[in-house]
Amino acid sequence: MSDTMSRITLARRPKGAPVQDDFKQVTESLPAPSEGQVLIAVSHLSLDPYMRGRMDDVKSYAPSVDLGGTMTGQGVGRVLTSKADGFAEGDIVTGMTGWASHACLPGSDLRKLDPSLPPSTALGVLGMPGLTGWVGLHTFGKPKKGETLVVGAATGPVGSMVGQLAKSLGLRTVAIAGGAEKCRLATETFGFDAAIDHRAHDDAQSLRAAITEAAPDGVDIYWENVAGMLLEAVMPLMNVHGRIPVCGMIAWYGGANIEDSNQLPGMWRSILVKRLQVSGFIIFDHWDQYPAFLGDVGPKVAAGEITYLEDVAEGLESAPAAFISLLKGGNVGKQIVKL
Amino acid sequence: MSDTMSRITLARRPKGAPVQDDFKQVTESLPAPSEGQVLIAVSHLSLDPYMRGRMDDVKSYAPSVDLGGTMTGQGVGRVLTSKADGFAEGDIVTGMTGWASHACLPGSDLRKLDPSLPPSTALGVLGMPGLTGWVGLHTFGKPKKGETLVVGAATGPVGSMVGQLAKSLGLRTVAIAGGAEKCRLATETFGFDAAIDHRAHDDAQSLRAAITEAAPDGVDIYWENVAGMLLEAVMPLMNVHGRIPVCGMIAWYGGANIEDSNQLPGMWRSILVKRLQVSGFIIFDHWDQYPAFLGDVGPKVAAGEITYLEDVAEGLESAPAAFISLLKGGNVGKQIVKL
Repeated sequence: MSDTMSRITLARRPKGAPVQDDFKQVTESLPAPSEGQVLIAVSHLSLDPYMRGRMDDVKSYAPSVDLGGTMTGQGVGRVLTSKADGFAEGDIVTGMTGWASHACLPGSDLRKLDPSLPPSTALGVLGMPGLTGWVGLHTFGKPKKGETLVVGAATGPVGSMVGQLAKSLGLRTVAIAGGAEKCRLATETFGFDAAIDHRAHDDAQSLRAAITEAAPDGVDIYWENVAGMLLEAVMPLMNVHGRIPVCGMIAWYGGANIEDSNQLPGMWRSILVKRLQVSGFIIFDHWDQYPAFLGDVGPKVAAGEITYLEDVAEGLESAPAAFISLLKGGNVGKQIVKL
Repeated sequence: MSDTMSRITLARRPKGAPVQDDFKQVTESLPAPSEGQVLIAVSHLSLDPYMRGRMDDVKSYAPSVDLGGTMTGQGVGRVLTSKADGFAEGDIVTGMTGWASHACLPGSDLRKLDPSLPPSTALGVLGMPGLTGWVGLHTFGKPKKGETLVVGAATGPVGSMVGQLAKSLGLRTVAIAGGAEKCRLATETFGFDAAIDHRAHDDAQSLRAAITEAAPDGVDIYWENVAGMLLEAVMPLMNVHGRIPVCGMIAWYGGANIEDSNQLPGMWRSILVKRLQVSGFIIFDHWDQYPAFLGDVGPKVAAGEITYLEDVAEGLESAPAAFISLLKGGNVGKQIVKL
């Protein structure tokens, strides 16, 4: 057992899109767990768009990462040493390890995993992204058979969960994704009824025309992962009494593309005239639904009825580049770092 | 009994704010009711901001007024001749009479009024505006004791209903109104805890500072009647899990003030980060709640527990000028035309 660990820290706050020099890898001695704690060797680390927000020094729903602090993140790992009740050496657990090779965490902040499923599923299809799609669709999307759903970033772990659940409930599902390969995966792997490559469209009008063709009865649920040009394209297509769960807005992260959309009055008018329900939600408010989610979706994943895709980057040192690529849509499925 | 009637028609579609020449008064012979119809002599006519939308030739939640057609509107009147079951000469009724001295309507489209209340209350505090405030606050505002409500156009019939109901439920209520006299009425007549004169503020920042002082714990419910600068001022003050019932946006009607607010990305971010629920709603979807509303609010109006204010214009010919003034905030309470 090595007596050092590595972690990736925030070296400086990015201006716009993060670059490699915004991160710094440091090596230090392995900590010893104190009473109630568990020392974990991290095997898989999750990379998610929300982490971009943590790099800024602005008030948000969760604290920023401090300069020099470890980048926030969920990991899966094996227990090396346990001083916490209920955990023993060799257990596979998940928790907020951060971008690090090892973590010392209180037992109360960890959850043991079902060893019959691949451990990385705890970070994606059966983890926070899967729960986000499941809770958000049911609670805020309120899907009804025969309706039409549009979702951006459709092959990602949230979008693909939303699309598969909606399809199984009898909705028409329209994927928006970047590039032909993702569009192929959207229809072939995730069963979307139609997929539109947003990169093939230069403006909201052109994208809107493509969505109109794919959603001839209008849009009842627009799952918002993206905002920007896609929001502008979809809003006029919303049906009366439509729902818009607002889960993310990756097109606008870091102040990007802000000039795209001087659309507020038209947007507000649509909300009124079409009696839309726009619901911001953040999964941290809904962890109490995790057991219900796992009870519903866990067996479906085990049976292959719910499919997932992972992009795996190798080694902790690859995390910054994989994250930078993720924010540009370079990944296809759930981005994992394998240590 | 006169054998002629007058009505006010849409002479041309306004560009921006309506002007007198957009309307034309015509006189014609009094119609005779056919089987199932009732002929009414209109005594009171309602003027409401939503009528501005009906003057445009754009797809909305209700059909436009045709050029040369009678301006849409609710009226109260006395039955002159009835060929409909359940109605007799002398009954006081309400229905969509339009801007007219008389109307011939099917009995099924009319409602008899409780003669113990002033007939004009059927157009305001106990009519569509009152129902709008009552349904919207309960269904979409979801008020909780100790929370803070902000409402624009606060002395109007919707805003004053929302404010009084919220106050009676134990909320802190903050009125936004135009001018010192309306602010005085907001606190003295309608019991708002604080009132802010938006005319005393040149920009959203200044208005926001005043609201911050009046709402030191932030804003849980923003009742949207106004949009424009007020929306821009309030949005950053919303608390987590706040609700925004979108009832109107008078600042933007007719394409006005659109340049005020290039604020969409910031707005969308607030909806996400604060988990806001933004709900467009239109009262025509909720008429089924009218009996429940009348059962709750009718006795409170009779007992003086719910107060209302009316601005009365005299004569059908005064309707266009009163409506033009209403859109500029020239009225204080519910705008009625007395024939």
